Amino acid sequence: MFEATGRLTDLICGNEAANAVWSPRATVQAMLDVEAALARASALHGVIPSSAVEAIVAACNADNIDAGALMTGAAAGGNLAIPLVKQLTAVVKANDAEAAKYVHWGATSQDIIDTGVVLQLRAALDLIDADLLALSAALVTQAQAHRATPMIGRTWLQQALPITLGLKFAQWLDAVTRHRQRLGELKARALVLQFGGAAGTLASLRDKALPVAASLAEDLKLNLPALPWHTQRDRIAEAASFLGMLAGTLGKIARDISLMMQTELGEVAEPAAAGKGGSSTMPHKRNPVGCAAVLTAATRAPNLVATIFAGMVQEHERALGGWQAEWEALPDLARLTAGALSSMLGIVPAMEVNVARLAHNLGATNGLVLGEAVMLALGDAIGRLDAHKLVEGASKASVANGTSLFDALAANETVTRHLSQDQLKQLLDPANYVGQAQAFVAAAIASADPKQQER
Amino acid sequence: MFEATGRLTDLICGNEAANAVWSPRATVQAMLDVEAALARASALHGVIPSSAVEAIVAACNADNIDAGALMTGAAAGGNLAIPLVKQLTAVVKANDAEAAKYVHWGATSQDIIDTGVVLQLRAALDLIDADLLALSAALVTQAQAHRATPMIGRTWLQQALPITLGLKFAQWLDAVTRHRQRLGELKARALVLQFGGAAGTLASLRDKALPVAASLAEDLKLNLPALPWHTQRDRIAEAASFLGMLAGTLGKIARDISLMMQTELGEVAEPAAAGKGGSSTMPHKRNPVGCAAVLTAATRAPNLVATIFAGMVQEHERALGGWQAEWEALPDLARLTAGALSSMLGIVPAMEVNVARLAHNLGATNGLVLGEAVMLALGDAIGRLDAHKLVEGASKASVANGTSLFDALAANETVTRHLSQDQLKQLLDPANYVGQAQAFVAAAIASADPKQQER
Amino acid sequence: MFEATGRLTDLICGNEAANAVWSPRATVQAMLDVEAALARASALHGVIPSSAVEAIVAACNADNIDAGALMTGAAAGGNLAIPLVKQLTAVVKANDAEAAKYVHWGATSQDIIDTGVVLQLRAALDLIDADLLALSAALVTQAQAHRATPMIGRTWLQQALPITLGLKFAQWLDAVTRHRQRLGELKARALVLQFGGAAGTLASLRDKALPVAASLAEDLKLNLPALPWHTQRDRIAEAASFLGMLAGTLGKIARDISLMMQTELGEVAEPAAAGKGGSSTMPHKRNPVGCAAVLTAATRAPNLVATIFAGMVQEHERALGGWQAEWEALPDLARLTAGALSSMLGIVPAMEVNVARLAHNLGATNGLVLGEAVMLALGDAIGRLDAHKLVEGASKASVANGTSLFDALAANETVTRHLSQDQLKQLLDPANYVGQAQAFVAAAIASADPKQQER
Amino acid sequence: MFEATGRLTDLICGNEAANAVWSPRATVQAMLDVEAALARASALHGVIPSSAVEAIVAACNADNIDAGALMTGAAAGGNLAIPLVKQLTAVVKANDAEAAKYVHWGATSQDIIDTGVVLQLRAALDLIDADLLALSAALVTQAQAHRATPMIGRTWLQQALPITLGLKFAQWLDAVTRHRQRLGELKARALVLQFGGAAGTLASLRDKALPVAASLAEDLKLNLPALPWHTQRDRIAEAASFLGMLAGTLGKIARDISLMMQTELGEVAEPAAAGKGGSSTMPHKRNPVGCAAVLTAATRAPNLVATIFAGMVQEHERALGGWQAEWEALPDLARLTAGALSSMLGIVPAMEVNVARLAHNLGATNGLVLGEAVMLALGDAIGRLDAHKLVEGASKASVANGTSLFDALAANETVTRHLSQDQLKQLLDPANYVGQAQAFVAAAIASADPKQQER
Repeated sequence: MFEATGRLTDLICGNEAANAVWSPRATVQAMLDVEAALARASALHGVIPSSAVEAIVAACNADNIDAGALMTGAAAGGNLAIPLVKQLTAVVKANDAEAAKYVHWGATSQDIIDTGVVLQLRAALDLIDADLLALSAALVTQAQAHRATPMIGRTWLQQALPITLGLKFAQWLDAVTRHRQRLGELKARALVLQFGGAAGTLASLRDKALPVAASLAEDLKLNLPALPWHTQRDRIAEAASFLGMLAGTLGKIARDISLMMQTELGEVAEPAAAGKGGSSTMPHKRNPVGCAAVLTAATRAPNLVATIFAGMVQEHERALGGWQAEWEALPDLARLTAGALSSMLGIVPAMEVNVARLAHNLGATNGLVLGEAVMLALGDAIGRLDAHKLVEGASKASVANGTSLFDALAANETVTRHLSQDQLKQLLDPANYVGQAQAFVAAAIASADPKQQER
Repeated sequence: MFEATGRLTDLICGNEAANAVWSPRATVQAMLDVEAALARASALHGVIPSSAVEAIVAACNADNIDAGALMTGAAAGGNLAIPLVKQLTAVVKANDAEAAKYVHWGATSQDIIDTGVVLQLRAALDLIDADLLALSAALVTQAQAHRATPMIGRTWLQQALPITLGLKFAQWLDAVTRHRQRLGELKARALVLQFGGAAGTLASLRDKALPVAASLAEDLKLNLPALPWHTQRDRIAEAASFLGMLAGTLGKIARDISLMMQTELGEVAEPAAAGKGGSSTMPHKRNPVGCAAVLTAATRAPNLVATIFAGMVQEHERALGGWQAEWEALPDLARLTAGALSSMLGIVPAMEVNVARLAHNLGATNGLVLGEAVMLALGDAIGRLDAHKLVEGASKASVANGTSLFDALAANETVTRHLSQDQLKQLLDPANYVGQAQAFVAAAIASADPKQQER
Repeated sequence: MFEATGRLTDLICGNEAANAVWSPRATVQAMLDVEAALARASALHGVIPSSAVEAIVAACNADNIDAGALMTGAAAGGNLAIPLVKQLTAVVKANDAEAAKYVHWGATSQDIIDTGVVLQLRAALDLIDADLLALSAALVTQAQAHRATPMIGRTWLQQALPITLGLKFAQWLDAVTRHRQRLGELKARALVLQFGGAAGTLASLRDKALPVAASLAEDLKLNLPALPWHTQRDRIAEAASFLGMLAGTLGKIARDISLMMQTELGEVAEPAAAGKGGSSTMPHKRNPVGCAAVLTAATRAPNLVATIFAGMVQEHERALGGWQAEWEALPDLARLTAGALSSMLGIVPAMEVNVARLAHNLGATNGLVLGEAVMLALGDAIGRLDAHKLVEGASKASVANGTSLFDALAANETVTRHLSQDQLKQLLDPANYVGQAQAFVAAAIASADPKQQER
Repeated sequence: MFEATGRLTDLICGNEAANAVWSPRATVQAMLDVEAALARASALHGVIPSSAVEAIVAACNADNIDAGALMTGAAAGGNLAIPLVKQLTAVVKANDAEAAKYVHWGATSQDIIDTGVVLQLRAALDLIDADLLALSAALVTQAQAHRATPMIGRTWLQQALPITLGLKFAQWLDAVTRHRQRLGELKARALVLQFGGAAGTLASLRDKALPVAASLAEDLKLNLPALPWHTQRDRIAEAASFLGMLAGTLGKIARDISLMMQTELGEVAEPAAAGKGGSSTMPHKRNPVGCAAVLTAATRAPNLVATIFAGMVQEHERALGGWQAEWEALPDLARLTAGALSSMLGIVPAMEVNVARLAHNLGATNGLVLGEAVMLALGDAIGRLDAHKLVEGASKASVANGTSLFDALAANETVTRHLSQDQLKQLLDPANYVGQAQAFVAAAIASADPKQQER
């Protein structure tokens, strides 16, 4: 019999750990964890009898919940918490009828759902934090290793001037460093308790409201916000926006890698793995399977972010559609971004670099991409404008005659008067015209320093 | 033990029939249906031996497939078809080693995946077609029943001029009618075979390529396109756009209903149902649970459409991310829209209309909303400009003194000179100032005529 | 002094004709055209005196309007029609005080704004229609010319199997053909009059409402809808969705062209034009400036469509934000898509094709991309499975030894037993393994036939 | 003659100051400011002669630039900097031919465009910063003033439990406080120099590259990044995401205000202003014109953010479409958000609050919304379960008989045994059942403290 939980594509664009954080079971368990903590916090302040805690806490296990009934009940009530509390109450009642009276005391559905999501988000961001650190470290290593490996820089998908492969890694690294900063900053705002009761006043808890809220936050190790935020969704939106930006950066990296992996370029390749992107009939073909997963996430993430942003326009004290739109969009976004990140971790540390092809491609224009280097050197002697004209002429001649720029320049008397053949060769060596590439690599590594930023 | 397939929220914003069309099992079965049809079509033209067909077709049952292995294999290969064909081949081989050689003959992964999705899309659109017809019929009934029921028209969320409730229904109806036309038109373009082989040339089928393609389309009852469309996704985009527009219209209807359902307005209500949106502690509260589900779909749909549109920018003969972005976005969109449609079908036919509250709300401004009617009548006698000034003055006086417009006007000599008290009352009766409401209702019903458009 | 109207980037991602359709002046003129037609239609049915028509119509010229005052007034009133009608009335009054009383009679702001937009949309779609026909014709020519020009087909950005350049053109063409069909279908629904008065009942026009509406539609050469559609925006959404899909298809074409234009591939190039994408210092560099403009439009279009879809969820009889969101999004979308289309028209008809580079790139894998062709031929003799193994082995050997597949195969006795050197060469000639490429080209051209579809 | 710069709707959904920041003129001037600073910084380090600075700096005035030629040149070259540099060079040359050689020395087009945008962004964020502070202060005042003004809390657009108007303000305030924090954090990352030269290596500046970069940043008072970020767009994306989140929060506020302004609720109103949202013929109508502008921005912002996020997936060292997609999207987003913010500033400080209508609406359910308060009080005496049943019964009776909950309860012996009429009245007074509303208001004000956060 065919049995699948989740989506069949969950592993293409996700990873198991992140998927597990957002699984149906984990979702239910997170809500139950909130209910258990609520019972403990309420008892602490005498809101419910201490004797009720054990039975409630014991019942707060997803295994006690019937998923089918939950889903049917959710359709009728409009959210998961209503049927969940109903089932939970029944489970508690079976053991301890008195305790059952105190389930969910003082809370509203949204308190449980939102705080549950925050718990899941914390777990998801922790995984991402760890993976970002690992990616940062891998990029540091790669940038360092290839800080002086020349390759062609490309603008408009056209060969422009030389760079180094390390500089490319350093660019990626620097974006990752910024994402790590952002993650650090948003946690204080996003990982907070939601607890306001039916209309956000905690009225039914009377004078015990604030103490219970404080204890509940402490129990769950979440920040305690100044006040409930049922229809103020900027906290969720900020987390979503972080995820979306990260997916964008990963997409940029995947775009670069997949372009460099083109058969005709062959500069880098995703690490080979059994059954991964290979083709038995086409041994030359190495499909960028990891990049494809990342690019899929990067295509979807912007609009998942937009969905959550669009949902921010909510009505009064509980929303009609805007809040509910988060329920699948946020998990999808978190799952896809985490998946993209782990796909990238499957590529960058062991990425195959074909230095020979990098060098070969640098020669594709017969030296034209180094014209500027010669122009600058000649400019010192004959003035920039004349040098410009001279190199421009030589470049055009080189294209017209199919010769190298070296030959075109070496045939020019003005050039030979000021530059020896050796000097000309030096100038036309891409490795000598990569500007501040190494300095930039060093700067990016310095700002990234994973140790310094570890939390 | 807790066991859930799909998402826990699948029933909040979806319906069972539509969800089933896009379930993991249905997805796999659709691909297997394509493989079975391919075997039959290929054998028909001697491409594979007739003797192989039975074993292949028999094996094409989702129950033969291991979902876990499928998902793991998909992660490595980058799509579902690669591991599916592998498993299918193994199943066939177990019965008939010779037949196993002919599984998937001549096809590429995308042929199977795309055609499978088209089969699912056809089933999904058929459900939507039927539900649209039902919604159209319900709206015809409601529009007809309330064609003359006066209510206040509102612009900028402010009371403006009277309309009829039937006119509101007719507006919704007319949009539904257009969606039904669009659905009819797009089917010819969207419900087509995908069959091109590895690079879209069907080269490996040599001279049998076109006959096999024609038979395959016929077998699956799909249109045969002029040529494969692996990286031309406008067909999918058009279906997505239809779904998104429909979600938008349903969202508009839900927005109206939920506004009319506000406690302070109380003009209509979603039909009462056991456990549906009620609150034991707040018997006055009738949560618009159905509208919330629709508005959730309407919040998400635009960005799911945008995802599919963004994915259209694909590379060469097989895409890197753009195609893959459809895999979850299209099912999500179809499921949400179908769910929104069935939620709306759960509301409109049995919607509770509170005619007394409609009338009560019409009186909220003490007659000010009828000022224009009086102005027009007076204008015939004293000129439009003078009439305008007079009514404007009376309106301001009515607001200032908290009296009705009737009293303010009845106290004016110019008015009493030209209009009797009875005439004034008639003019201030909203039912007499709904313009072409009934004519428009009739026109909308005439264009909708469900019989005429039935397919 | 620096003076710019519109955006500085209007010509990068737009074209002058389409920009003109949506210019501030054209926007105002379209609204004035509606006011003029309304005066004519109203007089025709005695709603306003015939004597008022001339003065009103004469005043309906954008040159009479002060743009600054219009903008300031729009900010206060919330839309452009309120201050426009005020200015228009003043202009009429200066000539004919009596006529001034009849300006805008019976209409609401949204009637004028929406119908004005529909007039602009018609002009915009007419330009697009003509450009689509031209693009279709150019693609027919190119597809025909290169129907047999072999090139490598690429999947996952990796070389896969040969196709023909004509097939690539035919794929693009077929999508264009579908867009032309869609455009034909949507016009009937999108190009319609908006005329409903303050709450959509035309109440103030009493028994003359429907005749005036009919005459107004006739005067403006627009379809007359069954009823007003103030808050039913599917008509606009459908036009937006058409534009978005078209931008997506153009983006796909631009993606392909820019990839083929990469320095390392050099297969095609945008036509050279003075100052267009060239670089004096890097003569090898030909920036795909046209493709960049198209890709910009394709990046933005999906989210402009999503904006309009999101705006569909409108309140009651006049919306609060959803309608207003269309005001810039629709013109932007139309302008960008028209610009992308004209950019593409600047590329496709005169695109430079480098047949030598196409051939050169086909050889990049030393023949590996033709392995399947040999496998099929050998399979006829020694069975598919053995053939598969043999070719797989030869392919791997070819990669390992850096020799051509021809050499690897020619060294194999089984091969030489069944295939002569000539036969082997034939099999390894890409031109002989492009499957149904030419048939597909012919089919795409047949469905496109511009004459047949001309309207 | 009709002459308009920008869009006609610029003032509906924008404000003059913010629009000015992004005007064509300001855009050109920002780029010229970068060119001037570059000349100064380059001369400082001897890269260009000091004698060239004055002529270059003097020429860097937008008034020297021909907008039409700029736009035409931009279309050919693909960006604004190419034709701008050309014009600038010509202007310098007219004065000082020698200096003209040193215009734009060492920079690439993107350096000028990006840094120019950063300068505009800084100005735009400064305006927003000031307006956020003002909005924060206004919300503090309003929250404080109405901290104890009871009103009905609404969930699902249904009356739920009492809150205070001050709590609603405090909720808005708290979101504004978070946005102010975010703005402070992002500035360090977003307001940075872009300076990398043609391929991001600053190669042409040889050993003067880093000193020039540092001086350029200092001159422009921008942060100096570790390295150029031509195709790493997370800095821009973060700014966009901040703007989008802010628009979302403003949209939520506008949604609330416009709902409370409904004719039937009449709880608050936008401040009256001459010609602002009023209607001469319908004096009862006060259109929420400010809210409409905000909601328009909130409808558009999510997809403008998504556009910029989607554009992050860029190619190599200079992008093909992704970067260019920012050029209009970022200004639009910044302009709309700033406009929404100033619209909100036009509402909140002088918002009309109708305390009588707030009280009236609290009574709409005849006391049912206070049932919980009675239940809790009775629960202390007779147990929560019995109290629940009793109040539930009374509530149903109240609805069935159309009586008040007070009457229904006062008729119940169990109630009268435990609660005096006075006590019952106290319990049914909404002001006594607003829970922690005042404490939450105080907490929100404490976190907001504008002084503390002033920068």
